[in-house]
Amino acid sequence: MEIRDLGEFGLIDRLTKILKIEDSSVVVGFGDDCSCVRISDQLVLFTSDVQIEGRHFVKALISPQDLGWRVVSVNVSDVVACGGKPRWGFISLAVPPELEFEYIEQVYKGMEEACQYYKMDIIGGNTSSSEIIIFDLFLTGITDRFVPRSGAKEGDYILLSGYTGLSRAGMELLQMKKDSYEDFENRLIKAHTKPVARTDLADRIKKFASSCIDVSDGLAGDLSHITHMSRVKAVLHREKLPVSPDLKIFCTKYKKDCLDYMLFGGEDYQLVFTVKEKHLSQFSDCFVIGKVEKGSGIFLKEGDNIKKISEKGYQHI
Amino acid sequence: MEIRDLGEFGLIDRLTKILKIEDSSVVVGFGDDCSCVRISDQLVLFTSDVQIEGRHFVKALISPQDLGWRVVSVNVSDVVACGGKPRWGFISLAVPPELEFEYIEQVYKGMEEACQYYKMDIIGGNTSSSEIIIFDLFLTGITDRFVPRSGAKEGDYILLSGYTGLSRAGMELLQMKKDSYEDFENRLIKAHTKPVARTDLADRIKKFASSCIDVSDGLAGDLSHITHMSRVKAVLHREKLPVSPDLKIFCTKYKKDCLDYMLFGGEDYQLVFTVKEKHLSQFSDCFVIGKVEKGSGIFLKEGDNIKKISEKGYQHI
Repeated sequence: MEIRDLGEFGLIDRLTKILKIEDSSVVVGFGDDCSCVRISDQLVLFTSDVQIEGRHFVKALISPQDLGWRVVSVNVSDVVACGGKPRWGFISLAVPPELEFEYIEQVYKGMEEACQYYKMDIIGGNTSSSEIIIFDLFLTGITDRFVPRSGAKEGDYILLSGYTGLSRAGMELLQMKKDSYEDFENRLIKAHTKPVARTDLADRIKKFASSCIDVSDGLAGDLSHITHMSRVKAVLHREKLPVSPDLKIFCTKYKKDCLDYMLFGGEDYQLVFTVKEKHLSQFSDCFVIGKVEKGSGIFLKEGDNIKKISEKGYQHI
Repeated sequence: MEIRDLGEFGLIDRLTKILKIEDSSVVVGFGDDCSCVRISDQLVLFTSDVQIEGRHFVKALISPQDLGWRVVSVNVSDVVACGGKPRWGFISLAVPPELEFEYIEQVYKGMEEACQYYKMDIIGGNTSSSEIIIFDLFLTGITDRFVPRSGAKEGDYILLSGYTGLSRAGMELLQMKKDSYEDFENRLIKAHTKPVARTDLADRIKKFASSCIDVSDGLAGDLSHITHMSRVKAVLHREKLPVSPDLKIFCTKYKKDCLDYMLFGGEDYQLVFTVKEKHLSQFSDCFVIGKVEKGSGIFLKEGDNIKKISEKGYQHI
């Protein structure tokens, strides 16, 4: 059987059954945005995300400094989604010996810029040669409460930290390889090449969210991890889903369906999370987009009309 | 300037200057076998080591189960070299979608076998697609004393935990692609495909070693990291360097120079370390191969004859 026949989640499911976790200090193993262990009185989060040339980035389409920023940000986003603050990164680098040093230097400058922004450090690394460029960042974070995907309860509100769909629009604009771009197009491109992880929300997520995940594979796909693992149903309100003004112009200009981008566009690195009604006031800067109900699946409500929506997020295999 | 012009250590030197470490809980950053941070009352070690198809392994020359064992062992070896015990691994996997699932399954079984042996757990991971197979294991360990490369002092004895040169001989035997191998050849091949990290020495290294490194790039090359960072000279005694009986037969049969294999063959994952005279009795199962003196460089003493030996270990770029 080929790996493609299993898909990403089928593969993960089979492989994680082989690896047995026997250590009682492991609080969370496979299956969430981070793993978590208890060290003395601290909860320590582990995550990693690899950027492989030709798969996750195309050298000609992203500046090396933005790539470095991105390598850090996508990992930070996973830590924040579990209620943590990023602390210590460990970078595994593999590069072709004939690559220009200045390219890698710029990537590292981008990583350092992100470390400064997120108040964390990359403290070590491993270097190797390879035919393609590979950056694999392992990141640890600290928290005193792990916010799982599985904590959403009936009656909770579903919140979104910002606009979605921008990154996918930006990627498509880049792929058009136009000679010049309008201002709104450059902003969408930047949303793709230089996403910002929401560390500003970390403390409140830790204190008040019953569940959380970051939007890396698309709002519907990522929210479905919450509904599956919490064994609940999500009902989203069409009119409450925030539409970015730039995305609106993009969809008009290129005759695209905004909702499709908002629900299924990935790599925005916003957070989708659930909170009890009494904590809603803590998140006045976020969008309340729906409610958790008894049942399963994700539904979209528009007026009196309710329809089930696909939960398919981006699969990496 | 191309990366190959800088070499592995030139590259690392330049890149680590870009990444500034500001966090006072970081005990050790770049430049040792592990990085180290203080979390509450614990010292936590971080290391990683990547295995890239075609660079670090050839699919036809190592069984998937041995490869899995190897991925874990090379990382465990780094943790032990810093005086730690391995605890929590995080595996980053990238595979071609058309790869047989059974291959990866066997690799994971090898990883689990190693986890059981070393009493640690792989607690999370990240999965991606790629044109080549990449396993990148990030490993954390725990210690209450970090054993650095930089702690060797004049008068210390230099010890080696076991034979070196076996892995290189084993690799060369594999590359001969013979139809059948003699028993001693199979043992050398196994030393290459299934190296065992010396967790049995972890407690004593932590308590008694003044400096330590694992032999991954060759005895001379790795020892030179100790002499450079400790600003001392190492004098090895030719007659005290342990020669494996299997390596001796190999070198006779294939007309090779044993000493060359012992000093410059890599990937044995033995430990070379220094201890004060009063602690020598703790290591009766290890080989005392020389002494630390004032000065710099590595020297080989044979009778009254002393010569400087090359410090060149394997560079990964």
